[in-house]
Amino acid sequence: MKQFFSFLDRSVFVFIDNNSNFREEISNTLRILVATDCHLGYMEKDEIRRHDSFQAFEEICSIASQKKALTSIRYQVDFLLLGGDLFHENKPSRSTLVKAIEILRRHCLNDQPIQFQVVSDQTVNFPDTFGRVNYEDPNFNVGLPVFSIHGNHDDPAGVDNLSAVDILSVCNLVNYFGKMVLGGSGVGQITVYPILIRKGSTAVALYGLGNIRDERLNRMFQTPHAVQFMRPEAQEGVQVSEWFNILVLHQNRIKANPKNAINEHFLPRFLDFIVWGHEHECLVDPQEVPGMGFHITQPGSSVATSLIDGESKPKHVLLLEIKGNQYRPTKIPLTSVRPFEYTEEPNSLVSERLIHGGSFWRTSTRGGDVSTRTANGYVLRGVVDCGGYDRASP
Amino acid sequence: MKQFFSFLDRSVFVFIDNNSNFREEISNTLRILVATDCHLGYMEKDEIRRHDSFQAFEEICSIASQKKALTSIRYQVDFLLLGGDLFHENKPSRSTLVKAIEILRRHCLNDQPIQFQVVSDQTVNFPDTFGRVNYEDPNFNVGLPVFSIHGNHDDPAGVDNLSAVDILSVCNLVNYFGKMVLGGSGVGQITVYPILIRKGSTAVALYGLGNIRDERLNRMFQTPHAVQFMRPEAQEGVQVSEWFNILVLHQNRIKANPKNAINEHFLPRFLDFIVWGHEHECLVDPQEVPGMGFHITQPGSSVATSLIDGESKPKHVLLLEIKGNQYRPTKIPLTSVRPFEYTEEPNSLVSERLIHGGSFWRTSTRGGDVSTRTANGYVLRGVVDCGGYDRASP
Repeated sequence: MKQFFSFLDRSVFVFIDNNSNFREEISNTLRILVATDCHLGYMEKDEIRRHDSFQAFEEICSIASQKKALTSIRYQVDFLLLGGDLFHENKPSRSTLVKAIEILRRHCLNDQPIQFQVVSDQTVNFPDTFGRVNYEDPNFNVGLPVFSIHGNHDDPAGVDNLSAVDILSVCNLVNYFGKMVLGGSGVGQITVYPILIRKGSTAVALYGLGNIRDERLNRMFQTPHAVQFMRPEAQEGVQVSEWFNILVLHQNRIKANPKNAINEHFLPRFLDFIVWGHEHECLVDPQEVPGMGFHITQPGSSVATSLIDGESKPKHVLLLEIKGNQYRPTKIPLTSVRPFEYTEEPNSLVSERLIHGGSFWRTSTRGGDVSTRTANGYVLRGVVDCGGYDRASP
Repeated sequence: MKQFFSFLDRSVFVFIDNNSNFREEISNTLRILVATDCHLGYMEKDEIRRHDSFQAFEEICSIASQKKALTSIRYQVDFLLLGGDLFHENKPSRSTLVKAIEILRRHCLNDQPIQFQVVSDQTVNFPDTFGRVNYEDPNFNVGLPVFSIHGNHDDPAGVDNLSAVDILSVCNLVNYFGKMVLGGSGVGQITVYPILIRKGSTAVALYGLGNIRDERLNRMFQTPHAVQFMRPEAQEGVQVSEWFNILVLHQNRIKANPKNAINEHFLPRFLDFIVWGHEHECLVDPQEVPGMGFHITQPGSSVATSLIDGESKPKHVLLLEIKGNQYRPTKIPLTSVRPFEYTEEPNSLVSERLIHGGSFWRTSTRGGDVSTRTANGYVLRGVVDCGGYDRASP
């Protein structure tokens, strides 16, 4: 198990700005903002909630692109890492694409210097036409790189096997990685090559595994050699054991049916840290998996798309600071997310009890998703569960 | 009527490269490559023809971005001007968007210096979030600016009134202009503000009018003050009369029903040059409109989308060079366009006569569009016209 390393108290950062220890600390610490499941375009036709997904993404990008202030460098990050389902729809509307690109362009393009290097074969990591990490393209001023895998909502499809994330990639606004080509016969075979990142003395191997149908990936993990994680070769000054290994994936984590989810114990033990996308409940504090040697963060969605208790918990993103083979997590609350409260009421009481903000639920004796709007702009949604109702999956 | 000005013979350009007259000529001459109706994504599901629209657009961009060579500066242009229907579909597929952005990114982003200025209020010309001409954004290296209006295929729609061209605009790859907001009551009212362009002593006012339903625009043109073209105010060193006035529009030009087309005589006489999009027949050589004082070029589509005789003529784009109030047109053939031959045969002879390349037409006694592929890769298409068949409009 990795230990959290202790940073100096941030409140004294400003006062020791000329201290060489501090500068050494900064230049060797990779700072990543981690978020997932932004579901851009969710409810885009709803009069009230159409802006929700964009507001949350705007807030995430603002946190990531926040520049060094006199009194704090709290959120100044090297890059933003996304765990899939950036888009809610496989074919986002023009409006959603325009808004997504607009937000990324405003936050990611600037003069901020990039203080890390990608030292792996970029044509393997980013196998599109341009084949390199976006900040190295001399025709763009990328100040905030974004790395993203795809989720199940924005997975690649069609003759060209393109995801909506490919549109952001060809715009040079997102470094899209983790798209697998399922080779081999039978269950298939995939090889996951890491993006190798260096910042000073810190070396991070970033593995991405874009969403694959859970049943299939489950079978693959249980088939010898079907899922291969390539380890970095020994590089100048870095032993294989010194890489801090991160995996980003977007799969079911816990399900009643274990064939329809990925068991944490399937993952290789050399990994140090897992970013688990797809599950919308915010369990952002890294949890140790006993006996596996890695920690898992599950940031959860930045917009509630399912009527489940998990979505009602406060939403956060994670500031992940890595120095050498230690890391420190800091959870950052998202303040722009529409409040969501979840209660369960006995069915017979629905029409009597669900009175809120001066308005009533529309109820249905057949069960299902019901919603109404209150005079003060809150949106009330509910499930009338008459038994057998299958709640929407993320 | 404007006179064509005489350039020195291009073949001697290299030899007089140090000649001050030549340099003065170059620095005062605005060079525009004009194309239209590229219909990106046309037939994208057809096994053979899916690449056609992209190949032609690639060729157009290659001509526009061709750099100064030792022996010729023939096609080195200041910008590319498109007359609408860049996309075939109102909601282009992921694949079409990715390919379009890829082509534009490869050709438009480079270190080529921009040698003209946009001196009008850019927030009026480009009223999107960023509100300025793309090469002025310091975060992009734009070497080949593209200016485009929308056509009837990629016209704005939806709650946000967005066109597919807006996606290219927010990517900063295209300067999208000529989107009108139809104000006023009844037939509506539009005001067309020009993009004012200066290059040395040459001043060009570029008016754009994205497609409006023909019947409506026809009525507007016949309603007093419903269509207003704003003239530039006198600027330092340029009188109003010295601006060379170009209009780009995308409408039916000639139709059996005059209510469903725009009569050339509707257009204001202060215009000097018209780029007419939408009509697919290549009539690229500028034609004078008697009594109106302007010339019209109709470049035609770069991919054949209709089974009409006009589409079978060789496709061209236009190099338009403007110096002061004179211009010189040079038509440039497109060599990548799939050959298209058009013949009409008496109906009774269809099945006997349309034999080509070792293959036969599939024919239909009910009439309609028929096609087949020959052994050598040619695509044969035809209309079996049994009377009353309405040929596809562009």
